[in-house]
Amino acid sequence: MYSFKNDYSEGAHPRILNALVESNFEQEEGYGEDRYTRKAVELLKERMGRTDVDIHLLSGGTQTNLTALGAFLRPHEAAMAASTGHILGHETGAIEATGHKIISIEAENGKLTPSHLKAVLNGHPDEHMVKPKLVYISNSTEIGSIYQKNELVQLREFCERNNLILFMDGARLGSALCSAENDLQLSDLPALVDAFYIGGTKNGALLGEALVICRDSLKEDFRYHLKQRGALLAKGRLMGIQFLELFRDNLFFDLAMHANKMADMLRFEICEANITFLTKSPSNQIFPILPNGVINELQSKYAFHIWEKVDSDYSAIRLVTSWATKEEEVAAFVEDLKKLL
Amino acid sequence: MYSFKNDYSEGAHPRILNALVESNFEQEEGYGEDRYTRKAVELLKERMGRTDVDIHLLSGGTQTNLTALGAFLRPHEAAMAASTGHILGHETGAIEATGHKIISIEAENGKLTPSHLKAVLNGHPDEHMVKPKLVYISNSTEIGSIYQKNELVQLREFCERNNLILFMDGARLGSALCSAENDLQLSDLPALVDAFYIGGTKNGALLGEALVICRDSLKEDFRYHLKQRGALLAKGRLMGIQFLELFRDNLFFDLAMHANKMADMLRFEICEANITFLTKSPSNQIFPILPNGVINELQSKYAFHIWEKVDSDYSAIRLVTSWATKEEEVAAFVEDLKKLL
Amino acid sequence: MYSFKNDYSEGAHPRILNALVESNFEQEEGYGEDRYTRKAVELLKERMGRTDVDIHLLSGGTQTNLTALGAFLRPHEAAMAASTGHILGHETGAIEATGHKIISIEAENGKLTPSHLKAVLNGHPDEHMVKPKLVYISNSTEIGSIYQKNELVQLREFCERNNLILFMDGARLGSALCSAENDLQLSDLPALVDAFYIGGTKNGALLGEALVICRDSLKEDFRYHLKQRGALLAKGRLMGIQFLELFRDNLFFDLAMHANKMADMLRFEICEANITFLTKSPSNQIFPILPNGVINELQSKYAFHIWEKVDSDYSAIRLVTSWATKEEEVAAFVEDLKKLL
Amino acid sequence: MYSFKNDYSEGAHPRILNALVESNFEQEEGYGEDRYTRKAVELLKERMGRTDVDIHLLSGGTQTNLTALGAFLRPHEAAMAASTGHILGHETGAIEATGHKIISIEAENGKLTPSHLKAVLNGHPDEHMVKPKLVYISNSTEIGSIYQKNELVQLREFCERNNLILFMDGARLGSALCSAENDLQLSDLPALVDAFYIGGTKNGALLGEALVICRDSLKEDFRYHLKQRGALLAKGRLMGIQFLELFRDNLFFDLAMHANKMADMLRFEICEANITFLTKSPSNQIFPILPNGVINELQSKYAFHIWEKVDSDYSAIRLVTSWATKEEEVAAFVEDLKKLL
Repeated sequence: MYSFKNDYSEGAHPRILNALVESNFEQEEGYGEDRYTRKAVELLKERMGRTDVDIHLLSGGTQTNLTALGAFLRPHEAAMAASTGHILGHETGAIEATGHKIISIEAENGKLTPSHLKAVLNGHPDEHMVKPKLVYISNSTEIGSIYQKNELVQLREFCERNNLILFMDGARLGSALCSAENDLQLSDLPALVDAFYIGGTKNGALLGEALVICRDSLKEDFRYHLKQRGALLAKGRLMGIQFLELFRDNLFFDLAMHANKMADMLRFEICEANITFLTKSPSNQIFPILPNGVINELQSKYAFHIWEKVDSDYSAIRLVTSWATKEEEVAAFVEDLKKLL
Repeated sequence: MYSFKNDYSEGAHPRILNALVESNFEQEEGYGEDRYTRKAVELLKERMGRTDVDIHLLSGGTQTNLTALGAFLRPHEAAMAASTGHILGHETGAIEATGHKIISIEAENGKLTPSHLKAVLNGHPDEHMVKPKLVYISNSTEIGSIYQKNELVQLREFCERNNLILFMDGARLGSALCSAENDLQLSDLPALVDAFYIGGTKNGALLGEALVICRDSLKEDFRYHLKQRGALLAKGRLMGIQFLELFRDNLFFDLAMHANKMADMLRFEICEANITFLTKSPSNQIFPILPNGVINELQSKYAFHIWEKVDSDYSAIRLVTSWATKEEEVAAFVEDLKKLL
Repeated sequence: MYSFKNDYSEGAHPRILNALVESNFEQEEGYGEDRYTRKAVELLKERMGRTDVDIHLLSGGTQTNLTALGAFLRPHEAAMAASTGHILGHETGAIEATGHKIISIEAENGKLTPSHLKAVLNGHPDEHMVKPKLVYISNSTEIGSIYQKNELVQLREFCERNNLILFMDGARLGSALCSAENDLQLSDLPALVDAFYIGGTKNGALLGEALVICRDSLKEDFRYHLKQRGALLAKGRLMGIQFLELFRDNLFFDLAMHANKMADMLRFEICEANITFLTKSPSNQIFPILPNGVINELQSKYAFHIWEKVDSDYSAIRLVTSWATKEEEVAAFVEDLKKLL
Repeated sequence: MYSFKNDYSEGAHPRILNALVESNFEQEEGYGEDRYTRKAVELLKERMGRTDVDIHLLSGGTQTNLTALGAFLRPHEAAMAASTGHILGHETGAIEATGHKIISIEAENGKLTPSHLKAVLNGHPDEHMVKPKLVYISNSTEIGSIYQKNELVQLREFCERNNLILFMDGARLGSALCSAENDLQLSDLPALVDAFYIGGTKNGALLGEALVICRDSLKEDFRYHLKQRGALLAKGRLMGIQFLELFRDNLFFDLAMHANKMADMLRFEICEANITFLTKSPSNQIFPILPNGVINELQSKYAFHIWEKVDSDYSAIRLVTSWATKEEEVAAFVEDLKKLL
C-alpha cells in the first residue's frame, strides 16, 4: 500500500535528521533563543532581502493560525476566508475559540479577490455585526490553486485602502512558489502581505512553520502570544535547526520542486487518459474525477482521500505528492490506473 | 561556559534520534494515528497496568496544561494551585486565556494539602464567585519538592468527597519518581489522580508530554480539544517514536535517575560546604543560598538562574541537572565553588 | 414621523410602569432573589404546567443567547443556525466571543428542518472539525415566519436521536404564539425544546427575557453563568416586577395580539394593493416589496428599515408593529401608500 | 425587618420613575441612539467640562468591568487590582472569562499605590508571564475607603511613565465624591484616569452605569464591544432617561449625600459607643466590629452582611446606607444596638 494521502506521511529529509544528530549535545538556550533559531531567522531575512520583518517558528499550521489571528485581531474583529479555507472547516473552531468569527466567502477555485471583500464590507456596516478586519488566504490553496502576483497586488491595494490585514497561510508555500505557473518569489511576499508563514511540516521538516510578520504594528509582544498559546517549545532549537538546514542552500525549494514534479507526472498522465479534474491545480495536490469502480480498485493498492462525490457514478479523489514521493510509485499508480480505465 | 540552567539545554538522548532515523521513510497516518503513537500508548498502559486510561501525546507543558484544563472545566469553574505553580506565574496567562481563573494558594514547599483546599472552598460559597473545581499540583514541584503517596491519597479523598478534579503536572515526573525520597510508582498514579502527564521534554526527548486521562468523564472528545488548541501535530509519529523509545525498556527512568544522581552529588557537596538551601528538594532542581560575590564568580564559568534574593548579601540560585549532565562538570562546579567560599 | 422600525420604540406598557411605582419603596433582596422575581418564576411555571423547569430573567436577547449558549456548549461544540439567525449576523460575534463557531445553514423562510441538520452532521465527521451540538431556532424568525407544532416535533425527535440541544430564541415569541397560523401553546414548549426564552423587551416590557431551561443537564450552576456574563442585575426586581405584571393575567398575550392585529391590517391592505412580499410572514414583521420611488416618498413620513434590494427598481422594506402601534397610524400609512402607487 | 444589606434594596428615586412615565410613549431609536441618551451624554460632558470624552451607558458594574477591560486589553495583558477588588473575588471570573488574568495585590485599606504597581512590574519581566497593563481601582473601594486627589495624581504619573491604563470602578463614585474627606470633583477625573464609570444602580437608578472613556486610544469601536457583550439594551432610553434625570440638576449628588449622612450618623453613634471598625471608611459602607451575641440579636430586626470573623467572640458586620435609607431606621438601629451593649 503506497500513500498519496498527504505530504506528511514520512519523517524528515535526511539532511535534517543529520543536522539534529550533529548538534545534539550542544547546550542551547530554550524557548527559541538558541543560536540555531537566531541563525535561521537571519538567513530567512537575507533570503527575503528584508531586515525589518519579525520571524517566529511555530509547530504547525493550526497553531500558527490561531496564535497569529488571536494576536492580530481585537475582540470584535473578524477574519474573512474562502469557504474552502483551512481555518473555516478543518481546525475545529480554533479561531473561534480565540473569540473571533470567520466570515465565509464562496470563492471560485479557493481564491479571494477584492470584489469578494468589498461585498463583505458592504454587508457589515455597523456595530451590530462583527468588523471584518483580516483577510485569510492560503497559497497554495486547500484545493491546489495558487495566487498570481497581480492578484496579490490587487488584494494588497484593497486591504490598504480599507485598513485590512492580509494574512497568507503558507503551509504549502513551497509548492506554490515552485509551481510552473507561479510568478511570485519569496522575497516578494513581505511587500505584499502583512504576515505569512513558510510551511516546513509539509515540505520535509519534522515540524515547523516560520511565521513572518511584515507590518510593524503586528509585531509588538508577539512572543507573549506564542507562550500563551503553548507555541513556545522549550527546545526551540528543534525548529531552528530544521529551518537552518532547509534554507542554508536551496533544499527547501528543491524539495518542493520534487513534490511538484511528481504531481506534474500524475497530472500529465491522468490528463492523457482523458480524465478531468475537479479544480485547476498547478501544485502538489491534484483532484482527478474517476469512476467509483476505479476508485475502489485503486484503494486496494494506494491510500488517498476521496474528496467529493461528483455524481452517482463519479467522485473526485485527492492525490498529494511530497518531497518523499517516489517516482516509481507514481509510475506504478499511473499504470494501474490506465489498466482500470 | 557550562549550563545548569535547565533540563532542556541539549537535544535528545541518542537512542531517540536513532529511532527517528530508522523509522524515517515509513509512511504513517497523520495526527497521532500512526503506528508508533498507538504502540507507545499501549506500552504506557501496560506499564501502568491499566487499559482503561486514555493517553494523548502533546508538545509541551503549557500546551498540555491549557488543553487539559480548558477541556475539563466549565466556564465558571476555576483551578486551584500553589502560588509557585507553573500555570500561575510562568505560562503568560494561558489558562486565563481559555477563560478560567486560577486561585492562588500560599503553600509550604509548593505542595497543596486538603486543608488548603478546604479553606478555598469555604471562601467560595456562591455564584458571585468562581466555583473552585480543579486542583493543579506538580510532581516534582517548581521548587523541587515531591509528593509522598500518603499525601496524594489524602488529596484524592478530599477531591472525591468534594467533587473536585485532581490534575498532576508531570513535566518533571521522571525525576520525582526516581527520587531517593519517593514512594510512588507510575502505576499508582491512575488511581490517585484524575489526569496527569509524563514529561518527555525535560527527560531526554526532543519534545513531548504524555497526558493520561484516568477519569472517564474527562475523556470524551478529547481529540477535538487537541486539534482546537493546535496540539495535534501532523507528524504525530515524532512524539510516538520518542515515547516508544523511552518506555520500551527502562530508558525513561534511567535518564531521570542520572539527572537525580547529578543533583545528589551537587546537593551533598554543597551541603558539606555548610551551605544551606532555600527549599528541601530531593529531585533534579536544587536551590543553594550563596553569597552574591560567589555567585558572580561562578557566573563566569557556569550558567544558572538566580532564583531569589534572600537578603542584601545572599541569594538563592537554581541548579538543574538532566539526563545529559556530565559528572565531570558537576565535579568541576563543586571544586570551583569550594575555592570561592 | 411615525416609526414602524421596530417593536422597541416606546417605553413599557403603562401597567408595568405602574407596578414599578407601586413596589418602589419595598426593600428586596438583590440579584434576582427578590420576591417579585420568585413570584414571576412561579407564575410562569404554572402557566406552562411545569414545575420542573428552571427560569432566569435576563436583560436582552444577545445577552440571553451568549449566556445560554456559552453555558450549554463545551469548547469544541458548535451551534447551527439558519443564515438569517440573529446570532449569526446581528450580535457582533457574541457567540464566537464565548469561543463557539456557528454553522450557517441556508434555510427556506428562516426555518430549520431535520434534513438541514442531517446534512451538517454528515459534513462534520471527526475531530478536525467542530462538533455540531446545539440547534438555534427563532420563533418567530428574523423574517417573520413561525414554527408549526409538527415542525418542532420533528426537530425534537431528530435532536434526541442525535444528542443535540434544541434552543429557541423567543425574542418575539409572543407574536409567534398569537399568530393566526400558530398551533403551539406556551405550555407545549418545555416538552419540545431544551431551552427557550420568552421575550419581554419586544412585547411591552422596558427590558427582560425569561429564559426557561427544560433539560435537567443544562440547569446546573446557571446562576454562575449569569453573574459571569454580567447578566445578574443588582435590582433584579426590575425584571421580576415586569414579568409578574405581564403574566399575572393575559397582558403578555393581549399585547402580542395587538401587535399582530396591526400587522394583519398592514398585510391585508398592502396585499389588496397587489403588492407582493419578500417572505410569508404571519407575525408582527412584514416585508412588502415596493418601487424605490414609493419607498423614498414614504420615508418622509414614516421610519422603517429598507431590508433588501430586490432588483434595480424594487426593494423590500420591513414594517414592524408592536403593543404600542396606533391603529390610526396604520390606517394613515396604508392610505399614503395607496396614493403613491 | 429593615435592611442595611446594600444600596440597591429599593427601586429608584421617584423623580426617575416619573421621568420614565412622562416619556413613555415617545418613539425613540434603539440601542442607545435615542435622544435621552444623547442628551444625558452631553450633559455629563458639560458637568465634567470635557467634550473630548466618550460616554456609554451600561446596565451594571460587572457588565461594565468586563466590557471595558475586555476591550482595552490585548490577549496577553493583565489587570492589577487590590485583593479586595470587586473584579477579583465577586464577579465569578468575568474578567478571566474574557481571557485576562488579574494580578492580586495585598493593599492597605483596599487602595493601590505606585509602590504596589512597581513591585508587580518588577516581578513580570518577560514573555513567560502576563504583561501587567491595566490598573483597576475602585472609588469608593469595596471596604469603604476613598482616594484622595494626590493619591490619584501619583497613580496617574506612575501609569503614564509605565504605559499603564488607569481604570476606576465608580459603582459607588457618588458616595466617594460626597464624602466629608473627599477632595476630588467629578470634573477632575478625566484628567486623572483613562476610563471610569459613574454608578447609577447604587445611587438611585433602577440600573445604569455611565462609562467615561478619556484616553483616545481606548475609544475606537467601543459600541462593537457593548453589542458583543450583550450590553447594548434595545431600549437604551431606559438608561438615558435615568442619567438625564440624575444629572439635570444636583439629584445624583443629593442622593449620595443623603446616603453618606445616614452612614455618618451610624458611624458617629457607633463610635460613641466605643465600638471599633474593621476599616477606616468615610463613605456609605461601614464595618463595625461587634460581639457575636449582639450581632445575633440585631439580626432579628435588621438585615446586614456579616463581613468577617475577627476572633472567636467578635465579627465585623457591614452596614450600607443609600439614597433611600430612612433616618428613623438609623436611629432605631442605633438605639437597639446601644441597648444590647
